[in-house]
Formats: sequence, C-alpha cells, structure tokens
Amino acid sequence: MLQKNKKTVVLLSGGLDSATTLAVARSRGLLCCAMTFRYGQRHRCEIDAAKKIARSLGAFEHRIIDIDLAPFGASALTDPKIKVPKDTSDLAGPERIPTTYVPARNTIFLSYALAWAEVLGASDIFIGVNCTDYSGYPDCRPEFISAFQKLANLATAAAVTGKSRYRIVAPIMNMTKAEIILTGTRLGVDFSLTHTCYDPDPAGRSCRRCDACRFRLKGFAEAGLKDPIEYQTAKQ
Amino acid sequence: MLQKNKKTVVLLSGGLDSATTLAVARSRGLLCCAMTFRYGQRHRCEIDAAKKIARSLGAFEHRIIDIDLAPFGASALTDPKIKVPKDTSDLAGPERIPTTYVPARNTIFLSYALAWAEVLGASDIFIGVNCTDYSGYPDCRPEFISAFQKLANLATAAAVTGKSRYRIVAPIMNMTKAEIILTGTRLGVDFSLTHTCYDPDPAGRSCRRCDACRFRLKGFAEAGLKDPIEYQTAKQ
Repeated sequence: MLQKNKKTVVLLSGGLDSATTLAVARSRGLLCCAMTFRYGQRHRCEIDAAKKIARSLGAFEHRIIDIDLAPFGASALTDPKIKVPKDTSDLAGPERIPTTYVPARNTIFLSYALAWAEVLGASDIFIGVNCTDYSGYPDCRPEFISAFQKLANLATAAAVTGKSRYRIVAPIMNMTKAEIILTGTRLGVDFSLTHTCYDPDPAGRSCRRCDACRFRLKGFAEAGLKDPIEYQTAKQ
Repeated sequence: MLQKNKKTVVLLSGGLDSATTLAVARSRGLLCCAMTFRYGQRHRCEIDAAKKIARSLGAFEHRIIDIDLAPFGASALTDPKIKVPKDTSDLAGPERIPTTYVPARNTIFLSYALAWAEVLGASDIFIGVNCTDYSGYPDCRPEFISAFQKLANLATAAAVTGKSRYRIVAPIMNMTKAEIILTGTRLGVDFSLTHTCYDPDPAGRSCRRCDACRFRLKGFAEAGLKDPIEYQTAKQ
C-alpha cells in the first residue's frame, strides 16, 4: 500500500498522460517530486507545459533535467532532418516502430528517476506510459516496466541493505485515451495546460495530424469532451 | 559468438578496469565505440585518461557525454561536502555501501550506451564491472548486469521487430585486480595512461589511500608489477 505524505518521483513530460499520472499520485496523498527532461526534443514547449502542470497540481518539487539525446539522432523527435509523420493510416500496431521512437528514452528517464528516488528515500516512481492508445513504442509496455522494476531493486543500495523496495507505478497503463481524459478531468487536471503535439508551429499550436495529436483528438471525441488547446487551422 | 569488424559500445571511465575491458573487446576484432561520462565527478581527470586510452587502444570512435548527477548529491564522488573515505579498515564487504557509491550511476551509463548501441546497430555493450576486488557497489554485480540485459531486450525496437538481441558483456567480472592487470598487460594496455584515484590532488596525482587506490596498489603488488602512475608522496 502507498503511504500518504511520502515522497514519490513522478515523470512529467507535459502531455496529458503524465499530467493525469501526476494527478493520480496526488490523489493518493503523495508528495510528488516531478521530473522533466529537456532532451533536445523538437516540441520543447512541452517543458513550459510541464512547469504549469506541476504548479497547478501542487507538485512538492519540480526538476528539469538537461540531457542531450540529439547526438544519438535516429528519431523524428530529436533529429530535425527526419520529418514527423502525419496522417498515418494506421495509428497503432505491434510490429511497427514509428520514426518518432527515441532510442532507449524511457530507460534513460527511469534511470534518472531511480537516482533521484534513491537520494530522496522515495520508493515509488510514477510513469504515464500507456499501451492502449499509443504509438507502439517498446518502452511503454507492461513487460518493460516490470523489467525496470526488477532492475531497480538490483541496481541500488536497497539490493544490498534490503531497506527499501522500488515500485514502478504506471496507473494509466491499460486505460484508453478517453479513460485517461475522464480520469484526469475527475482529478482536476486542467488539460488546457498540457502539450501533446510532436510538431507544433512556432506559436506552440498543435498540428492535429501527427500520431500524438490524433490520439488526443480521438480521446477527447470518445470522452465526449472538447479539447481546450489551440490547433493550427490551415493544413501545413 | 562475437563477429569481427562489428561495432560495439564500450563504457570507458579512464580507470584500469575499463581500459582492460576495451582491450578485451579490441582483441576480439570489434570496432569499439567508446563512451565516457562527465557526470560531475571530483576526479574528472579520468576523462583525459579515457581520451588517451581510447586513442592508444585504437577505439573506432570516442564520445564524451555530459550529464549532471551532482544535483542528486548523496555521493562522495559528486558532492564536495562529503569526504572520500581513506584507509578504511575493510576493503570490501557485501553489507556495506560506501559513501563513494553514486546512486543509479551504472544504470544511467548503460541506458545511454543502449541508446547509442541502438542507433549504431550494435548488439553488444562492454562494461568493466567487477565483483571481486571492488567497493561493494550494487550495480557492479552479475545479477544487475543480467537484469539490465533483460531490460535492454524489452526496451528497444528489437523487442518488437525481433531483429537483434543485446548482450551486456562484462569480461572482467570475476577476475581479481591482479588478473585484470595481467590481462591488460598481455593485451597492450598502457597502465601509465589510466586514472583510478577518487581524490587526486590538483596535479592529478593519486592519493594512494582511497578504496580505489588501495585496490589498484594491491592488484599491482599481487601481479608482481610496478604501478607506473604517480602517487602523492606526503600523507594528506
């Protein structure tokens, strides 16, 4: 069982999944230490979104960590030479790895979260991964999360002293996007603060055509709610 | 079996363990892509050592990655307020986590190595961890390495496409420090280029009293060889 008033690390990208995950952790009475990465992503306006969400949902602390994944390239999210795919015919599929996949990104994020959790004396790390309405990234699946949890308990001082056990908590793993939106709404997430689009225009307006936008719009439609963020009007 | 002329990622700190590990990978005919981290360590002269070693052993490529673990503190290696222990009575022990332990460091290093391996199309990651003459760090043990290998194969595109399998190779895991030194010597490692000390003086001379120095000196003594690096003469 989770203990109230206990520090916990929450990965917060600035999107609606991680905002809802933070709201879930807050609703359990936890002191949420939110962690956001500036990793060379083209949609870096999500970092400002993360700051607003952390404040709005009462995070106990919020750290922005600078890491540079751009030198590794190979992703449409970090390499300006690779275009973000638009209007893909198939939104999700287990055999397809989209070009927006960033190699080992969630492994790196969780490793930093683990370092922080160890220093804070926190035993839980919340992450907003989801394997229902998602882009097919390998590091969003339950088997990945479970393998990281095993690793965490072997990688740290806890493995030797036996003093704590880490849990990787993924509360929205099996929700549809509509369920995530309804859960967030119930827990007071202000979705107008969230940023989802992989390829926003310079004003930060969402493209409505990348996978991320399309999952978001589909989710709001299925939830019967209006998406409060601004979209580009003209076709790009 | 390892294939010759295949790219492989080798974690290289600049110490004698990772130098020997690089030499082992080179002796197997691999194209070694070496990776070193500037992570806020007080013994940052090891980074220059890593550069010289990479050149001397013919690494195919060498990247220095800037990451900042200092904000997480909690280690004598990254927090200047915590002293590096000297002349500890017990050099190794399974229940003791020394203050030089850096939370989740090897997990973070391996995560970056995995990202690079995925981009390079490399399937092997070499790491110079050792669980014989070591400081008792949890992330140097075989069970940690084996858990990371499992994670790597779930975290990446390979998990979905089935196209490659990652191996975390720890060739010196079970060697004594003397055996590592003898292996390195046989494979042409120039140990005068390596840096080991956690707490060198401003000229980069080793203290001879921290755990790392003491394991090193004990290893050279047992190997019947003279350690070619310079040590501080006066007691600090």
